[in-house]
Amino acid sequence: MSLSLNQWTTKRWSVAEAVDGCVRHGVEAIGLWRQDVAAQGLAESARLVREAGLRVSSLCRGGFLTTGSAEALDDNRRAIEEAAELGAACLVLVVGGLPGVVPGEPLGAGADRDLAGARERVAEALAVLAPYAGERGVRLALEPLHPMYCADRAVLSTLGQALDLAEPYPVAQVGVVVDTFHVWWDPQVFEQIARAGARIASYQVCDYLHPLPADVLLGRGVMGDGVIDFGPLTRAVLEAGYTGDIEVEIFNAEVWAADPDEVLATVKERFAALIG
Amino acid sequence: MSLSLNQWTTKRWSVAEAVDGCVRHGVEAIGLWRQDVAAQGLAESARLVREAGLRVSSLCRGGFLTTGSAEALDDNRRAIEEAAELGAACLVLVVGGLPGVVPGEPLGAGADRDLAGARERVAEALAVLAPYAGERGVRLALEPLHPMYCADRAVLSTLGQALDLAEPYPVAQVGVVVDTFHVWWDPQVFEQIARAGARIASYQVCDYLHPLPADVLLGRGVMGDGVIDFGPLTRAVLEAGYTGDIEVEIFNAEVWAADPDEVLATVKERFAALIG
Repeated sequence: MSLSLNQWTTKRWSVAEAVDGCVRHGVEAIGLWRQDVAAQGLAESARLVREAGLRVSSLCRGGFLTTGSAEALDDNRRAIEEAAELGAACLVLVVGGLPGVVPGEPLGAGADRDLAGARERVAEALAVLAPYAGERGVRLALEPLHPMYCADRAVLSTLGQALDLAEPYPVAQVGVVVDTFHVWWDPQVFEQIARAGARIASYQVCDYLHPLPADVLLGRGVMGDGVIDFGPLTRAVLEAGYTGDIEVEIFNAEVWAADPDEVLATVKERFAALIG
Repeated sequence: MSLSLNQWTTKRWSVAEAVDGCVRHGVEAIGLWRQDVAAQGLAESARLVREAGLRVSSLCRGGFLTTGSAEALDDNRRAIEEAAELGAACLVLVVGGLPGVVPGEPLGAGADRDLAGARERVAEALAVLAPYAGERGVRLALEPLHPMYCADRAVLSTLGQALDLAEPYPVAQVGVVVDTFHVWWDPQVFEQIARAGARIASYQVCDYLHPLPADVLLGRGVMGDGVIDFGPLTRAVLEAGYTGDIEVEIFNAEVWAADPDEVLATVKERFAALIG
């Protein structure tokens, strides 16, 4: 089991700095974010990870497909091309919330409460994007998000639902993300991890903090700082046949304020103790 | 379809005041809370609702069974006796979170991360309490809570999980609560409502606010103020055969600060427009 640093765990680092950090700390893989890749330059980012000998465990993220807009599809096609150029093991898709419901902003008159419709549009977009990704050797990874993000970030809320959505497509084209923060509470999680098998495109770990901070997006903590029992989940993912890197992805105001080198040292220590 | 006022929607009102409020506003049923009943006196509360001709749609709440303690069982036996004396249609059970994880308090060294164990203890407690309730003519109502409360309030997170837990017992002994706030996001909710059928002991409505307030417990809003599409859920509950009262239960700092008479007037108006 090999640790991958998701770049947003050390959010202050650019792609170049995060690549250096991985090399310095003996971390063999990295999860990249599109906006940081764009800031560094796509070709330059690809060169940096290649020359450092790092695997790109994921590119975050495509998705936001619930409006059914042509712009969203175009943006996802670009994300697929970027993932191909970076040699990323998968492109993570956060499918989007209810149309017109914006994270952190008050509910406006344009909010669309048709949850079934939003889910249907995700399925329709996937039918377009899966073959496009397949032709470019890119694997899409559907990420179910914790149900508290259903309104504003992802109408995809459980692993079972993600697997239903992935089912029509080849395993190499559409996989799923198992992220401990999002799935730990799910009474069906072990059964669905076993069902997922080779569909698991990414295993992401971080803890679920208690109490949640005022901005629930930032409720992710370093493993050991929250309520998740990582042993059973990690064992289940491995028993399902997952052999990829294990990404640590933490959104947390204190972690982001800390020295990234210290964060990465702590993450490595906790990973060794609780995950690998 | 008849509106029931859950007493905590007008939290400043005592039992006597809430009963008066219901009569004044033409509301025929009320959901009571144990601590308010205790403050009013159990016999006096029973007399007040009886003389006002109100139905008691639920008593909130028993539960907190995840520690496996004898004290918790004793407290639930008392709650069952109270529900019997009040003639409540059901006793709502909020099963409790991970042992040692306290709402609003930092995670301490005593936090128990064994989620499967906590769930098992709920099943064990139910085996004791269901027959006790049955002998007294009281129906227990298992309430799945939104997964964001899994750590600190209820390890019971989905309707499907509640139905699995209820299955060994007669329908008259153990039912489930369908609360729109807790279940609206669930991709299996319609299938599970249909499966529930006569197990539905209570249908509670309120909206899911966006963004959530800093204390996520208070993210409940008056119908129409949040992201829930009530039509499909209400139709599904009615098609499943539910004929009981529909309780409006809102935990919300602004609602609690407002004049309870105005709150109840608004609730009635929104109920007529969106639910009944």
